[in-house]
Amino acid sequence: MNQSPLIEELIQSFKVLPGVGKKSAQRMAYYLLERNTKGGHLLSAKLAESLEKISSCHKCQDLTEYDICQLCSSTARNDLELCIVESPTDVIAIEQSGIFKGRYFVLKGHLSPIDGIGPNELGLPILQQRLQNEGFVELIVATNPTVEGEATAHYLQNMASKLNIKVTRLAQGIPMGGELEYIDSGTLGQAFADRK
Amino acid sequence: MNQSPLIEELIQSFKVLPGVGKKSAQRMAYYLLERNTKGGHLLSAKLAESLEKISSCHKCQDLTEYDICQLCSSTARNDLELCIVESPTDVIAIEQSGIFKGRYFVLKGHLSPIDGIGPNELGLPILQQRLQNEGFVELIVATNPTVEGEATAHYLQNMASKLNIKVTRLAQGIPMGGELEYIDSGTLGQAFADRK
Repeated sequence: MNQSPLIEELIQSFKVLPGVGKKSAQRMAYYLLERNTKGGHLLSAKLAESLEKISSCHKCQDLTEYDICQLCSSTARNDLELCIVESPTDVIAIEQSGIFKGRYFVLKGHLSPIDGIGPNELGLPILQQRLQNEGFVELIVATNPTVEGEATAHYLQNMASKLNIKVTRLAQGIPMGGELEYIDSGTLGQAFADRK
Repeated sequence: MNQSPLIEELIQSFKVLPGVGKKSAQRMAYYLLERNTKGGHLLSAKLAESLEKISSCHKCQDLTEYDICQLCSSTARNDLELCIVESPTDVIAIEQSGIFKGRYFVLKGHLSPIDGIGPNELGLPILQQRLQNEGFVELIVATNPTVEGEATAHYLQNMASKLNIKVTRLAQGIPMGGELEYIDSGTLGQAFADRK
């Protein structure tokens, strides 16, 4: 227990951050108070501003401070392909690879009936609307290769095939630089089955 | 680069925290925006409040939201011993051990002429005043066992001996649970010299 109740509360507030335990939270709090008050003020202000201004893009549900995010409003992107991902950080990962130049749709989760997350919670009515109106020719379903991600992909596949839109999934197999010895048998089995 | 300039700024703000790189900062920003806005608001508000209200205790220089910190104002502590440490987190470590029941003085650093940190920057005039007026019988110098910490300890020793106050240093030796094989030779040499 800290001698200062306020510092103790600050430490507790840092502990909500992912990957931050008691010791790291203490280190962060004292670092900002003792050695970087400027950085502390900036963090506090940016966090308040972000929480106030950032919400979902009306078109793709990615997080943005605009009504329509920069990726949706860009004129430099291809309007024929739509990539569906589970989270905003997946968009960043795909953008970093530079491989995809189409549009996105961010589910912010996956179907999970047990948690009360159905098609409406993922914004699938908005997606349905876009698929009907925007003339996409390919839907790239990039949900995670987990049970829930696969179930969500299956649902999306049904949705798109009724509209005669081609649906693809990301290839599964051994990752680049991976060593066979350390790859799980499920992945290895998939890689064998899909050999080309 | 993030699609949202504001999220990118938020990520940069998190990167000032100790031990937080680009990936962790991104994870923190998206976690608060996507899944814990309540925790984000609390962190932002607590940080602003702490930076505004917390400053140095007028007696011991520890960080506190009061004029005089709880350790200095407590009537349950022993007024004969004063422990001098380099930083507020050292106070926490010593308090956690439960071994010391006297008063503290926090230097917030060590003598470092090359960085322009002399006796005045460490608040030694305040310490001098306390040593003259408060009747301490023992000064426990718990600065770090580094070159700068030792130099600072030496300076404090001179200061206290002029006032006929007994000065002690924390014992140096092998840490509890340590293995001889992995202990540096400086520490091992000290432990041999101080054997009892």
